[in-house]
Amino acid sequence: MPSRRVLANAIRALSMDAVQQAKSGHPGAPMGMADIAQVLWCDHLQHNPANPNWANRDRFVLSNGHGSMLLYSLLHLSGYDLPIEELKNFRQLHSKTPGHPEYGYAPGVETTTGPLGQGISNAVGMALAEKVLAAQFNRDNFDLVDHYTYTFLGDGCLMEGISHETCSLAGTLGLNKLIAFWDDNGISIDGEVEGWFSDDTPKRFESYGWQVITGVDGHDPEQVEKAIAAAKANKDQPTLICCKTVIGFGSPNKQGTESCHGAPLGEDEIAKTRDALNWTHPAFEVPEDVYAEWDGKAKGQALESEWNTLFDGYKAAYPELAEEFLRRVAGDLPENFSDQADKIIADLQANPQNIATRKASQNALNAFGPLLPELLGGSADLAGSNLTIWSGSKGVEKDDASGNYIYYGVREFGMSAMMNGITLHGGFKAYGATFLMFMEYARNAVRMAALMKQPAIFVYTHDSIGLGEDGPTHQPVEQLVALRATPNLDNWRPCDQVESAVAWKAALERKDGPSTLIFTRQGCPQQTRTAQQVSDVEKGGYVLIDSDGQPEVILIATGSEVSLAVEAAQTLSASGIATRVVSMPSTDVFDRQSADYKASVLPATVTKRVAVEALAKDSWYKYVGLAGTVVGMETFGESAPAGDLFAHFNITAQAVVDAAKGL
Amino acid sequence: MPSRRVLANAIRALSMDAVQQAKSGHPGAPMGMADIAQVLWCDHLQHNPANPNWANRDRFVLSNGHGSMLLYSLLHLSGYDLPIEELKNFRQLHSKTPGHPEYGYAPGVETTTGPLGQGISNAVGMALAEKVLAAQFNRDNFDLVDHYTYTFLGDGCLMEGISHETCSLAGTLGLNKLIAFWDDNGISIDGEVEGWFSDDTPKRFESYGWQVITGVDGHDPEQVEKAIAAAKANKDQPTLICCKTVIGFGSPNKQGTESCHGAPLGEDEIAKTRDALNWTHPAFEVPEDVYAEWDGKAKGQALESEWNTLFDGYKAAYPELAEEFLRRVAGDLPENFSDQADKIIADLQANPQNIATRKASQNALNAFGPLLPELLGGSADLAGSNLTIWSGSKGVEKDDASGNYIYYGVREFGMSAMMNGITLHGGFKAYGATFLMFMEYARNAVRMAALMKQPAIFVYTHDSIGLGEDGPTHQPVEQLVALRATPNLDNWRPCDQVESAVAWKAALERKDGPSTLIFTRQGCPQQTRTAQQVSDVEKGGYVLIDSDGQPEVILIATGSEVSLAVEAAQTLSASGIATRVVSMPSTDVFDRQSADYKASVLPATVTKRVAVEALAKDSWYKYVGLAGTVVGMETFGESAPAGDLFAHFNITAQAVVDAAKGL
Repeated sequence: MPSRRVLANAIRALSMDAVQQAKSGHPGAPMGMADIAQVLWCDHLQHNPANPNWANRDRFVLSNGHGSMLLYSLLHLSGYDLPIEELKNFRQLHSKTPGHPEYGYAPGVETTTGPLGQGISNAVGMALAEKVLAAQFNRDNFDLVDHYTYTFLGDGCLMEGISHETCSLAGTLGLNKLIAFWDDNGISIDGEVEGWFSDDTPKRFESYGWQVITGVDGHDPEQVEKAIAAAKANKDQPTLICCKTVIGFGSPNKQGTESCHGAPLGEDEIAKTRDALNWTHPAFEVPEDVYAEWDGKAKGQALESEWNTLFDGYKAAYPELAEEFLRRVAGDLPENFSDQADKIIADLQANPQNIATRKASQNALNAFGPLLPELLGGSADLAGSNLTIWSGSKGVEKDDASGNYIYYGVREFGMSAMMNGITLHGGFKAYGATFLMFMEYARNAVRMAALMKQPAIFVYTHDSIGLGEDGPTHQPVEQLVALRATPNLDNWRPCDQVESAVAWKAALERKDGPSTLIFTRQGCPQQTRTAQQVSDVEKGGYVLIDSDGQPEVILIATGSEVSLAVEAAQTLSASGIATRVVSMPSTDVFDRQSADYKASVLPATVTKRVAVEALAKDSWYKYVGLAGTVVGMETFGESAPAGDLFAHFNITAQAVVDAAKGL
Repeated sequence: MPSRRVLANAIRALSMDAVQQAKSGHPGAPMGMADIAQVLWCDHLQHNPANPNWANRDRFVLSNGHGSMLLYSLLHLSGYDLPIEELKNFRQLHSKTPGHPEYGYAPGVETTTGPLGQGISNAVGMALAEKVLAAQFNRDNFDLVDHYTYTFLGDGCLMEGISHETCSLAGTLGLNKLIAFWDDNGISIDGEVEGWFSDDTPKRFESYGWQVITGVDGHDPEQVEKAIAAAKANKDQPTLICCKTVIGFGSPNKQGTESCHGAPLGEDEIAKTRDALNWTHPAFEVPEDVYAEWDGKAKGQALESEWNTLFDGYKAAYPELAEEFLRRVAGDLPENFSDQADKIIADLQANPQNIATRKASQNALNAFGPLLPELLGGSADLAGSNLTIWSGSKGVEKDDASGNYIYYGVREFGMSAMMNGITLHGGFKAYGATFLMFMEYARNAVRMAALMKQPAIFVYTHDSIGLGEDGPTHQPVEQLVALRATPNLDNWRPCDQVESAVAWKAALERKDGPSTLIFTRQGCPQQTRTAQQVSDVEKGGYVLIDSDGQPEVILIATGSEVSLAVEAAQTLSASGIATRVVSMPSTDVFDRQSADYKASVLPATVTKRVAVEALAKDSWYKYVGLAGTVVGMETFGESAPAGDLFAHFNITAQAVVDAAKGL
């Protein structure tokens, strides 16, 4: 039987050879963490390579995602559908083995990693999802949800601020099934870290309330084994296992230095490493006995079968819960949700209210919430401003995780990356809120949701200079432009309670990507609509007010500026200018409509177009062209009451009238 | 003589009354920290209210910027030019007292704060600037640069990830003249923090290598006094003073709860608070004896005079250094810089090289660097990739801070906020680098530089799918759209070594705002230019290749895509289509040119326009209109060699030709 070291060397060889073949990549981390990975994957990880979607599998997150060849080697060796040809095609177009692990490419990749600090934060989200789902569904003798979340991370992840946010919260929430392995190799890209990273990391994690296991030799399987056992034995705290490792372990001339971090070792050094490791096999060849020892398929099948038996018993005892569990982990909404939501929306149209859209959002949560036990909401310490708490909200606490609301604290980036982890875990519709401005703190996690096609719902209130006195640090200008430019992200900026409810419905029903819901602080008058118009809201853009016959001018507006456009249209029409108003709550969704529909809303023949939005103008030239104009912001905001600011920045009905007449 | 408590109550009264008058704002923090502020400002802070720009003043940063009335009260009371009328106009348009402290509005506001965690990070940058400037200029018996940086921060700052990044680095670099006061009041917006913030903060800061002084009663001036003395006595470590305080101290019914955090107390409660504090004066009235005790003008004038005498002695001993010091703190470049830079640029045009623009950037640093001792560079652990180290670079270390290069570690947001602090401090031209993608981690600090009009230089390499195999997590798509939409930010994406050097020159010469310099990983052919064209680069956009007579088509490109446009133009011209190529390295700068110049580059009569940029298309509709088209990215990238990706995403010369012919 091959020794543990030989099993680990299979990872080392595959990693250095694949990086060499690709002529780029990161051999250092896979070679340094191979021994730890061998112990974890061969002895502890509960997974089924034949079914990467088994609901109760342990999650494994490679937070130091540049070490992707470690993960690909593990998946390949343990029997996932990732043949050796894919490893030979590392970092090539259309392979399943991109430079960083990308969710949806290779089976068994639980999340996309590479942007440092986010993997560990996804893992915190997954561990939290496990805890909440267990609290909601487990019953005596039926620990239906009962798995660990393991994560590997390096110095880079520990330097990133987001690791502070989420590891702090993991400690507060007592996520004891989260087990993190720190690859303490003392090296980052710029060299030996002591000149820029001298934290006492164990002490830091103790300050968060973690169990910290120090002094583990990451190349000694017995020490790793013992540490994992101690981690599992702790029922109150997450665990950080501090593993001393040598980056690029095995490479005689490069190990222990930054030179093996992010570049191929080179043919010569690879040959020397083969000698040093006594690995005599050619590139991409792994002996059968090594494969046999790694193979996790039989064990995985048995584990899943055992769980299936447990589930059958659960189903017999709790048939409704069992059905609900299956629905939840499949990510399906309740069957009648769409119809019920449409009724609620029709009611809102029939019962007009002039309210802030953030209030309309809370009303939508109160209406939809009772239908959706999968909601797992939260806010980055702005619950009373974001209005994210509804009548059915109950806080998730360390000692009672059965709730549906997370007090994330002032941690926008951490919240967003945790939402991605929760969504990837399954079982929940995660929403989380902050001010639109502070989306910027979390920006890359929102992008990661879009890249991973995860339907997280990002709620952003205080959406323009309309927030008033808090001033330019809090007033968004260019933020929505950035969100709209993001592929696969659906952004909604509704104008009243009806559009707000439609936006919530669309975000909840979306399965292949995230949505942002962008709401005002200030009141917005409700618009009049026919049933057809109400139904057209979900197309992202529609004719709200039309002229008799062909319009001469089209006004396009979103959110709080729709009422300005409506007022301007009345003035323009009264002066004989045929004017159409288009409400465009989501340019992203509108852009996906048929060419015919789009042309019916914005006919090519009408080139006199004015867009109005109290934000940066950049999004709108695409719709108004060189012949049109935009009423919006060109500078930062100011601190003053909202009404004064709209006048000061000349974003008024009169300004829209003047702009239209100027064309 | 009024007691310390009475002096502090003046802050409390001004704060609660101003918030009440504004009908919005945050009374809790000013009332909670008033006693600490009184000790610090009356007994320790070395400043001159009559000259807020005195180079050697202590810096004071209110990181919990929502408590702005604390700062405005302090500035008003101690004699800055901030009359009581300004406090009465708190949060009103055109006042000097916006909702959050905004740099450039009230004298004595050292930085704009509000976005949590960034104030403390600016303060770390200021303390680092002090240390480096002192190492560069101080001589025996002449401690020309010798001041403290004080900062107040709350739980929100401590929860934010950026506080981890910068406080960790402050410990590593031994910034002993940084003294932070934690307002440990146990309350954040959502209520008592224990449910979401249970860090052992003293232990956390000890893990960073800070001196931590715990158990200080923030309402006991003697304890505060003692803690400050201990902080100043420490010559190796920054100090965190943990002050137990009561939020809203003095308000009988609201103190100690979140209800006084972010809303006016109300007239009734204000009356009761006046009683409780025994503050009998009407709103906005402060007795003369209280003013007299607060007044820092005489002391400040004496301090500055003393320093001026020191400077005179320094000038006599080191005349050249003294002159250089004055130039540096004034933020002026060396007199002959512009001419010398132009010569360097002309040389580059005359000696063509086909190199990556990141390499061209390093060459520019090597050429300009020797002229600019004020350069203070760095990278977020990507020196070898960003190519930010030049021949004159020397690392700043804890025990030798005389260098000009900071190893920031993997801390993009921290780096950027520190750069703002360094720039605000004065004496340096700060540049800092990461991949363009990871600008997103730092995004709000870049915005803050723009808002504060600070000329920090953000260097971003690996600027498109051209980075290749690292894949979509590392390939920018929508990032430059966001940067371009940011007011007062000049973004440059040069196409070769000449444009790269011009971009550096423009960024270095800019005084009223930040610049981004965006460079490729891959090689870029050098373009041919006349002297006039070389000189036009600094206009942001210019005609690089023109047709004989009126063009039929205009191709607009930036960066690595300029060579594609040039190639496409050759093909189009050969097939009889008169084609102009416009190189547009900076849309921001181009937009500021005269209407005539802009029309000469992009004549209104030519509506067949194709923009080409291997990034999101959103920036370009403004220039090509509804009649033009854009060759660019609509999805995320993929992992593959760069050449394969340009072909896969159809961003090629042929695609540009096809797009032009399709118009």
